[in-house]
Amino acid sequence: MDTNKTLSRRGFVGSLAAAIGYLGLGPKSVLWAQTGRRPRRRYTEAEYDAFAKLSSNENPYGPSDAVLEAMNHAFKYANRYGYPDGNILQAIAEHHGVEPENVLLGAGSGEILNIVGSTFLRVRKKVVGVEPSYGSVYRQASGIKADAIKLPLLSDYRQDIPAIIDGTKKNYRDVGFVYMCNPNNPTGVIVTKKEIDTLLDGIPEDMPVLVDEAYHHFVEDPDYATAVPHVLEGRQVIVARTFSKISGMAAIRLGYAIAPKNLIDQMRPNGTGSISAIAKWGGATAIKDTAEQEKVRAVTLELRKKTTAELEKLGFDCIPSETNFFMVHLGRQVQPVIDEFRKRTVLVGRPFPPMLEHLRVSVGTADEMERFMVAFKEIFPDGKPAPTGA
Amino acid sequence: MDTNKTLSRRGFVGSLAAAIGYLGLGPKSVLWAQTGRRPRRRYTEAEYDAFAKLSSNENPYGPSDAVLEAMNHAFKYANRYGYPDGNILQAIAEHHGVEPENVLLGAGSGEILNIVGSTFLRVRKKVVGVEPSYGSVYRQASGIKADAIKLPLLSDYRQDIPAIIDGTKKNYRDVGFVYMCNPNNPTGVIVTKKEIDTLLDGIPEDMPVLVDEAYHHFVEDPDYATAVPHVLEGRQVIVARTFSKISGMAAIRLGYAIAPKNLIDQMRPNGTGSISAIAKWGGATAIKDTAEQEKVRAVTLELRKKTTAELEKLGFDCIPSETNFFMVHLGRQVQPVIDEFRKRTVLVGRPFPPMLEHLRVSVGTADEMERFMVAFKEIFPDGKPAPTGA
Repeated sequence: MDTNKTLSRRGFVGSLAAAIGYLGLGPKSVLWAQTGRRPRRRYTEAEYDAFAKLSSNENPYGPSDAVLEAMNHAFKYANRYGYPDGNILQAIAEHHGVEPENVLLGAGSGEILNIVGSTFLRVRKKVVGVEPSYGSVYRQASGIKADAIKLPLLSDYRQDIPAIIDGTKKNYRDVGFVYMCNPNNPTGVIVTKKEIDTLLDGIPEDMPVLVDEAYHHFVEDPDYATAVPHVLEGRQVIVARTFSKISGMAAIRLGYAIAPKNLIDQMRPNGTGSISAIAKWGGATAIKDTAEQEKVRAVTLELRKKTTAELEKLGFDCIPSETNFFMVHLGRQVQPVIDEFRKRTVLVGRPFPPMLEHLRVSVGTADEMERFMVAFKEIFPDGKPAPTGA
Repeated sequence: MDTNKTLSRRGFVGSLAAAIGYLGLGPKSVLWAQTGRRPRRRYTEAEYDAFAKLSSNENPYGPSDAVLEAMNHAFKYANRYGYPDGNILQAIAEHHGVEPENVLLGAGSGEILNIVGSTFLRVRKKVVGVEPSYGSVYRQASGIKADAIKLPLLSDYRQDIPAIIDGTKKNYRDVGFVYMCNPNNPTGVIVTKKEIDTLLDGIPEDMPVLVDEAYHHFVEDPDYATAVPHVLEGRQVIVARTFSKISGMAAIRLGYAIAPKNLIDQMRPNGTGSISAIAKWGGATAIKDTAEQEKVRAVTLELRKKTTAELEKLGFDCIPSETNFFMVHLGRQVQPVIDEFRKRTVLVGRPFPPMLEHLRVSVGTADEMERFMVAFKEIFPDGKPAPTGA
């Protein structure tokens, strides 16, 4: 994907807005950047737009033209309930070679993760997984007064499969499900196909395993594989996928679970079943838009490799990533560095305890990565400091 | 609202689609009309579009131009998480004179109803309300293995407040909350302000009362009032509102609860917190678009009165409605009549047990109401049959 393509897409959205004479909403310039649960700092639109946004593992290119067209078409049904929905369930089922009964839609894979928590942590009270990982599952567990058995990563940042098996078996009566983000967020490290096999062979067969494959499309390592075939085998595996990353639809809120019918049936009552027409039509187009996916993947991996090579050259170790983000070891506490980046209008990832000397950087556009490198060199003018032992 | 206005609005959406060369998605003409939980009959887009849609209490005019513009603007943030969101929470709070901490967003008021169920039926297991009413709360109760104490309507279709008080007090230890749809769906009948006062005075003060005001904007009766002031008084009242009806945003999925902070705090962990940027921007504009609301209200009430007057003239009693739908007494079983309407490409409401001789008709456009009356006269060529005693 070249920059012109990106500009033309932005131009596309912009020109729609222009065509209808959009002039901004309300007299106030202060808008509330809010994502549901936790109010964030308020930015005006102009402030927000001016940031290099490398903090949330977003796809900086947004939906493809075809997806924008499909979403615009869906406005036709804005006021309806039982409207033709672009055949989204069938499209997902066909894509994975499963039946519609094996698919559950969610408002982002975030809702899928919540549904799994609500379903399997109400009776049995613990989820087993590594730390750091995508924290949503653990936060919800705590919200519904369940608990998490959080296991440390190995020294090479891989997930400790024998420890997960052991933790699951030793607490079997209390464990609702096993959580595995693959590739893992925030490290970008995969669990191999062989390790997943080992996990499934090592735990009781009726233990649900939630495999969060939000970053699936960015993986190159041939030892990785999706866990969907385990669903087809009838294993108690739930694969979570999202349109937020490879398809650039984070704010549209669409994700789904692929799982055996018995698990989907248990999960369904805990979902809202409330997906917007815009998301359905967009998703039905996006899942077939493999050319766009390949473009996003190629430019993202190229920019990630370029940036990590530059950081390594400056003496900063990067954890080898298989995703659209990476972690760099700073050799000092990350929070003050995050603040320095923000002063330079570059948003980078938050601290991920206990990895408090690592900075997570999402891969943005070429321009954003350049701004990141300029800021990085300003913040670390002398290269990497000696380890503090902190 | 005149027809030109409506046509121009449709034209607006259509011209956007035309401007971007939209040609339809996928080679298949069969699309799946699916609304989350229960797959409905599949219609092609052409089939669906051809129906007079008087079955789901939809606003046939769709979002206003201003709301469409705001939603289109939100595509700019399609790929983001912590984006400026049009200040939706603040807009709702200001509209009702409450604090943002008193507001919880949901993917439609449907999600709000689900959240209330998940929050208050997990420990105490029963919801108290009338039947027929909007069934979502009762269905969810059954889905999460809770139960409902469903009380019959009075002979004039009003809700039986003394029975609700009695049912709540007699089962106090087991009751999670009281549900009240006001005006009620499917009857269109209100609960008066005085009756709500009586209810709140009659039940224990810590009993949550969910007042579903989905059809609030259509009420004319001066004895009706919103329950929001009871929230301000600190009563354990949860008011549910939606953008689906008066604002024509059903498929966009946006609703909210207004409640005391202690209830919102309990409810929040049971929500997805996952609302699309499109919904947020659209809602922030819609709630201020009072001119549009007044137009929708005026044309809807006019067409409802015209249609019910015609039916009464033919000898069919209509329940006096305060909403954008009404019930007509057929004097015979409703299901075969529904089927007859469908043959004539008019979709009307499903049966609402135990009112199986009543047909619920949503108020559509002038054209749709004309098609309804033509079909009605074909199905009932001799006027109202004598009561069968069924």
